[in-house]
Amino acid sequence: MVVGLVETAVPAAKSTVSSAVKKPTTLSSDPIINVARGDPTIYEPYWKKMGDRCKVVIAGDEFMSYFCNAMNLCWFLLPELDNAIRTLHRVVGNAMVDDDKFIVVGNGWTQLFHALLYALSSPDMPEPINVVAAAPFYSSYPEETKFLRSELYKWAGDANCYDRDEPYIEVVTSPNNPDGSIRGTVENREGGKAIHDVAYYWPQYAPITSKADHDAMLFTFSKATGHAGTRISWAIVKDKVIAAKMVKFIEVSSIGVSREAQLRAAKVLGFIADDCRNPDVKGENFFEYGRRLMSERWGKLREVGMKSNGVFSLPKYPRDYCKFTGEYTDSNPAFAWLKSKEGLNCENLLRDESKIISRGGPSFGVDSTYTRVSMLSRDVEFELLLERLAAVKGTVNGN
Amino acid sequence: MVVGLVETAVPAAKSTVSSAVKKPTTLSSDPIINVARGDPTIYEPYWKKMGDRCKVVIAGDEFMSYFCNAMNLCWFLLPELDNAIRTLHRVVGNAMVDDDKFIVVGNGWTQLFHALLYALSSPDMPEPINVVAAAPFYSSYPEETKFLRSELYKWAGDANCYDRDEPYIEVVTSPNNPDGSIRGTVENREGGKAIHDVAYYWPQYAPITSKADHDAMLFTFSKATGHAGTRISWAIVKDKVIAAKMVKFIEVSSIGVSREAQLRAAKVLGFIADDCRNPDVKGENFFEYGRRLMSERWGKLREVGMKSNGVFSLPKYPRDYCKFTGEYTDSNPAFAWLKSKEGLNCENLLRDESKIISRGGPSFGVDSTYTRVSMLSRDVEFELLLERLAAVKGTVNGN
Repeated sequence: MVVGLVETAVPAAKSTVSSAVKKPTTLSSDPIINVARGDPTIYEPYWKKMGDRCKVVIAGDEFMSYFCNAMNLCWFLLPELDNAIRTLHRVVGNAMVDDDKFIVVGNGWTQLFHALLYALSSPDMPEPINVVAAAPFYSSYPEETKFLRSELYKWAGDANCYDRDEPYIEVVTSPNNPDGSIRGTVENREGGKAIHDVAYYWPQYAPITSKADHDAMLFTFSKATGHAGTRISWAIVKDKVIAAKMVKFIEVSSIGVSREAQLRAAKVLGFIADDCRNPDVKGENFFEYGRRLMSERWGKLREVGMKSNGVFSLPKYPRDYCKFTGEYTDSNPAFAWLKSKEGLNCENLLRDESKIISRGGPSFGVDSTYTRVSMLSRDVEFELLLERLAAVKGTVNGN
Repeated sequence: MVVGLVETAVPAAKSTVSSAVKKPTTLSSDPIINVARGDPTIYEPYWKKMGDRCKVVIAGDEFMSYFCNAMNLCWFLLPELDNAIRTLHRVVGNAMVDDDKFIVVGNGWTQLFHALLYALSSPDMPEPINVVAAAPFYSSYPEETKFLRSELYKWAGDANCYDRDEPYIEVVTSPNNPDGSIRGTVENREGGKAIHDVAYYWPQYAPITSKADHDAMLFTFSKATGHAGTRISWAIVKDKVIAAKMVKFIEVSSIGVSREAQLRAAKVLGFIADDCRNPDVKGENFFEYGRRLMSERWGKLREVGMKSNGVFSLPKYPRDYCKFTGEYTDSNPAFAWLKSKEGLNCENLLRDESKIISRGGPSFGVDSTYTRVSMLSRDVEFELLLERLAAVKGTVNGN
């Protein structure tokens, strides 16, 4: 799932430290460090090491037609990608992908989210359907739902507070963005519908305890492998009518999805699946690598948190048995959900004391003692983040 | 510009003749031939011949970040593509691309059309802005405008009949889809806005008489070079605020555009530009090839039309001086706009007598004596189309 870009992409980009490689002398003279967004550049060194093994080559006359597979419901889905997605989910065990499930490919998570809103709503209803999510919810849900002023659906806020006797769609993110918690629906009324955003349900972020098996599930290439420049996501959908409406949405909004990006995703996902299935290959597979890296980062962050004298704290996650790794593992979420002492505005505190740009609690439907920090930046930026956080004193009120 | 898919993609695809290679014995036993859509497979043999010269190679660790160029207004636009687009337009002379113009890349023409509707409308207006186009207009405009039931804009029909004293956006397609005519705005009232769809303004379809220089112009890779599986289009925009709103739309709807597809488009467009600029290279450049092919096809179609005893007729286009080729050339539109005798339904006639699936006049806002037929199919399909058209007698009423 994509984070942090929707509201702030351009300014965020402009203020990012590209000069973070040189060691700062004083904090006040440092450039701004932007961890408000979740650009997953953490995995770059792994893919660099894999070299030509994940290379794709495309000739000038390939993929000329609009159609990939005219006999498939999702006629613009490359068969190689369909196959790689199903194979990888079977290898990892994080989602049910029986042959009767439909795979719908989209231009990134956001397009599939819109496609699902469209598919789960109806022009025949007298009122737009309510869209809710339990706070803290992904900060882009409200804007994504509202920006086109559609009469088909409307944002209705925190699912915990939802008490209308009207049709609704609940968006469930698990592991959750921003706080990493494992979640189910909070609303379970008759006629309620759900979108299950399982973008972070991969072994590097959380123990794989069972195969997710919801009506409509969203995964994305960017968070699975780190390839955010490749705008590829996929939905796994049980109901043919819903899948067909999603395909219709993608047809009307972009007439499908670029084959080049699909081919690359197929290559990378297929490579990971092969690597995981082949225990003879030396070195770590991608998920082992990712889990080790995330675990190391979380260890370092927790250490800084412990020493912060309560200026900020971090959530605790229960260990659980991961069927993929065959051992008890920790959650190592893609974002750290920091909470400062009562009375402090955590986002402002980090910004004013340490020039750290994060995203504050109110964007996620909760109070300003919380803020969200990406754990997926490059090593050099992460080390700088730790250094800055260690120096936060909580002396600036930040309100 | 994309044609024919929006309403009919899946059924159209399913009924397409893949078995068209074998010569039919009788018309009644033939498979259906679908020329309702504009899949530009005509150019495949050219790109096959170019072989490795347009090959792209992408390593596993390329394009990991969401950002291409954080300092550019369109932060997800690959600089190589920006450069190739501007270079090719300068070489062809079909559009003004001064450095102060903004290029916005999108996932195909449809996404940019939506982005422009969003950019030219405003949530502060009391009513949705009216969207109009002069009939015959591209059949997808009404559906594209209506399908999300946005409160920002609404479809208001034929620009020729528009008489409301309200704000409006006029979509101008030139050369026009479906009829190949060269057009300007028909509405020129104060406060009116325009979207110029110039997808077919390339030398293979029409003489290049001047550099198009409108406020907002849409081009698409699929119609320029035939690469429809690569969902790349671009807008050339004068106003920074409009361009920024388009970027915002693409950010919220798909967080940018896949880099792989952009790289490929850059390679192909750059190749054509180099080839056109280098007169030493043996053989035809892409536009010479395309123009020869289209001209041959139109010659054959006109011959069939002449022999049809008035069952159907074709539009005539004025010759004009093409600055790109340096000679007077004909228009050879991507679609043939057939008109049958009064009292006949041209679409039904072709379907019932010859199993030709075309798209009838009412989809384009005009009467059923008209129908649109793609001129961009593969050779074997085009030859079959000619054969079938030659056999149409007009004896089936088709109403």
